[in-house]
Amino acid sequence: MEAEVRPVSRSRSIMTELVFPTDTNHHGTMFGGTLMKYIDKISAISAMRHCSKSVVTASTDSLDFLTPIRMGEAVELEAFVASTHRTSMEVYVVVRAENLFTGERRVTCTAFSTFVAVDENGKPITVPPVLPENAAERKLYDSAPERYEARKKRRAERYSSTD
Amino acid sequence: MEAEVRPVSRSRSIMTELVFPTDTNHHGTMFGGTLMKYIDKISAISAMRHCSKSVVTASTDSLDFLTPIRMGEAVELEAFVASTHRTSMEVYVVVRAENLFTGERRVTCTAFSTFVAVDENGKPITVPPVLPENAAERKLYDSAPERYEARKKRRAERYSSTD
Amino acid sequence: MEAEVRPVSRSRSIMTELVFPTDTNHHGTMFGGTLMKYIDKISAISAMRHCSKSVVTASTDSLDFLTPIRMGEAVELEAFVASTHRTSMEVYVVVRAENLFTGERRVTCTAFSTFVAVDENGKPITVPPVLPENAAERKLYDSAPERYEARKKRRAERYSSTD
Amino acid sequence: MEAEVRPVSRSRSIMTELVFPTDTNHHGTMFGGTLMKYIDKISAISAMRHCSKSVVTASTDSLDFLTPIRMGEAVELEAFVASTHRTSMEVYVVVRAENLFTGERRVTCTAFSTFVAVDENGKPITVPPVLPENAAERKLYDSAPERYEARKKRRAERYSSTD
Amino acid sequence: MEAEVRPVSRSRSIMTELVFPTDTNHHGTMFGGTLMKYIDKISAISAMRHCSKSVVTASTDSLDFLTPIRMGEAVELEAFVASTHRTSMEVYVVVRAENLFTGERRVTCTAFSTFVAVDENGKPITVPPVLPENAAERKLYDSAPERYEARKKRRAERYSSTD
Amino acid sequence: MEAEVRPVSRSRSIMTELVFPTDTNHHGTMFGGTLMKYIDKISAISAMRHCSKSVVTASTDSLDFLTPIRMGEAVELEAFVASTHRTSMEVYVVVRAENLFTGERRVTCTAFSTFVAVDENGKPITVPPVLPENAAERKLYDSAPERYEARKKRRAERYSSTD
Repeated sequence: MEAEVRPVSRSRSIMTELVFPTDTNHHGTMFGGTLMKYIDKISAISAMRHCSKSVVTASTDSLDFLTPIRMGEAVELEAFVASTHRTSMEVYVVVRAENLFTGERRVTCTAFSTFVAVDENGKPITVPPVLPENAAERKLYDSAPERYEARKKRRAERYSSTD
Repeated sequence: MEAEVRPVSRSRSIMTELVFPTDTNHHGTMFGGTLMKYIDKISAISAMRHCSKSVVTASTDSLDFLTPIRMGEAVELEAFVASTHRTSMEVYVVVRAENLFTGERRVTCTAFSTFVAVDENGKPITVPPVLPENAAERKLYDSAPERYEARKKRRAERYSSTD
Repeated sequence: MEAEVRPVSRSRSIMTELVFPTDTNHHGTMFGGTLMKYIDKISAISAMRHCSKSVVTASTDSLDFLTPIRMGEAVELEAFVASTHRTSMEVYVVVRAENLFTGERRVTCTAFSTFVAVDENGKPITVPPVLPENAAERKLYDSAPERYEARKKRRAERYSSTD
Repeated sequence: MEAEVRPVSRSRSIMTELVFPTDTNHHGTMFGGTLMKYIDKISAISAMRHCSKSVVTASTDSLDFLTPIRMGEAVELEAFVASTHRTSMEVYVVVRAENLFTGERRVTCTAFSTFVAVDENGKPITVPPVLPENAAERKLYDSAPERYEARKKRRAERYSSTD
Repeated sequence: MEAEVRPVSRSRSIMTELVFPTDTNHHGTMFGGTLMKYIDKISAISAMRHCSKSVVTASTDSLDFLTPIRMGEAVELEAFVASTHRTSMEVYVVVRAENLFTGERRVTCTAFSTFVAVDENGKPITVPPVLPENAAERKLYDSAPERYEARKKRRAERYSSTD
Repeated sequence: MEAEVRPVSRSRSIMTELVFPTDTNHHGTMFGGTLMKYIDKISAISAMRHCSKSVVTASTDSLDFLTPIRMGEAVELEAFVASTHRTSMEVYVVVRAENLFTGERRVTCTAFSTFVAVDENGKPITVPPVLPENAAERKLYDSAPERYEARKKRRAERYSSTD
């Protein structure tokens, strides 16, 4: 069953939130840590929709916070599985802030996270391959091996010498 | 500008959440109050997307919780403006729970909420009319006056004699 | 034991909260969703006090938010079981906002919720009947069958045709 | 106006909560810190009801946690102003846990907190005296000067030599 | 193994937090209840680091809130086991607020909490004695019996006559 | 004043937390998103301690979650400013999980975040240079330009073609 290819559309997941006082830092803009929490949550849903298994976060690639998000704005996260690699899935998330008075929307962050599918004992298990269905998805799919190698290299460097 | 008709699609808003321990009651299923909070939030976003103004919740019609939602399931809320009435918008929300292991999805709740558009001083202001674009939307749109009258009647009865 | 009649006073439950920044929306008034969460919580306590069993929320009748509640105000919820029907209890909640500087109090919301008593396996079980003890309680008790029928009718209509 | 005596009953405030997973520590009982948060909140409401002013927490006397409170139990806090001293109010809180299946209730904690009334600039202002109305209230009122002196002594000792 | 003496340094624990809107009350300063929650959490960590067992909060001595803590300030809590008594540990916490623009730091609260070590069944078990290593620690250690007696006396008085 | 060099030690900040049910995902281990939130918070404190200004998160480098963190474990985050670049600071965070029963500690995550110092109008302002004081700090300081270039390159690639 794990060999069955699944389309990207199966894992596409959307989360829309309204920025409330409880989500802001002390200068009235959305706290980066809250956004990271949303990114992790919607990515995990997307990964589970792809593989139909429990998942754990393995890594998150670098995030850029391009513009501050203000209280009262909406924030919409769209996530999908961009590529897979045996037991892991790479999820792409794009975050758009939306001024609800003007309707203007802007990308404020994009992110790649990696999740590993696990069985009841927490052991990694293989996941079905993903099938890109349009040009944008194909571009991300085709560039996935490069990101995979970069992660492997970075991880090797970083943890060769940590205390 | 308020006279410009806006299609239902403009206000369609989606929120997907994963049910975590913090969302559950003491028997491990999703706490109804947390779901109500999500319903109010996505409905408010939908109403603001329609009218491009601040909004306040005026009322929520009756909610039925058809099946319990379990920890580890996803819950997806879809909201759109079903009808409008001068300064108010009626938002329809359908809540679907999703078993992430089987992919099975089921409607667990539907809701109608009413929001009023307000200016900077909190005074109600007129909203653009909404345009239904398919049969399901049209059905909700056509039955709106009946719900409107039922709400008016109920409100009159309930608050004629409250302490 | 389930046949033993229990007075309304047994289930009367009070929750008082102070509206903090974390409870407000982006225009500084109490977020409707937070109030719904409080309503569900105090109603569940009231229902459990009546029946001495676990309960699950079955439905919430329509809520009207009559006036906004401001940060720094107190909000007091009073709940009691208004009527029962085999395995279900109808809980009435009245919400009063209180300006702590003037002492002025106002009803901002009333609500009826329905809870079902369940055993360890989640199966509905019968609940003791409730006994109204004063005129206000009796009025709610006597009008309960009408609300029960309205709910049944609404539920039949709403879920005959949902996607 | 500050000279007007106000009865204890005016400040009596009740908060009932249901212990949810989010309130517990890692061995399934209510986290002491969450209970302290509730104690501070209901005490502040009680103090504001007495003096009709903003208040700040000045101190909390020692708390004993007599028995653990389990998930699924209700917890009821009852607070009232026990005594006053120029610009400060001493609030007494008693916390009772309630097993909702047996109806058994037990005192799990009692507390005295002190609040200072402040004006818009945060300056302390005088508060109305409180009038005990029954034997239990009178006992607390009569023993207040002793607790006041003990606090003063403790504070002097503790902060004479802090880093 | 319980007889092995452990130095104070083993239990020294630090928690630094940034005061966010969600931590404040309605006049923009840190809510006392949130600070109490932090105090209980860092004290519990400190107690567990000392005894390597589960712990439950037994009591918290009186707390004074010396100065308000403002939104945007950092708050640093430092906790360590000051003394032990068979199955219980007395944890000392000092709370410092820090203005991040000027670097100015001030003690805003000090606290003593008592924790009891428990086995898997919740039964109290003996804890290793603590060894003070410098003058400040020794001073707290030497004055511990006096605080112990004061707590015993207070507890006897308070609970001899509670409802 | 901005020219004054400040030692790494000035910005060293520690946050210790206990993993509670509210921090976990649905399989009982710490939710990655909650850890990211802690990382962002302690990093922001560290950056503000270095520059004495308000800061906003600009980016977070890739994070690896090396081992799951279980409920009941402590998690300790240590952050310091590793390097600076005109208006930005690079903060290094190491996260250690600690089994409180065995005392065993393990690195579960390391992270680099970048913060920009801003004035009251949100405009970037220069920050003081940082001075590494030991070998580990120096190593991170010396490798900072390489990470800076990698971030610049990545950002250019990623946002040249976003939708």
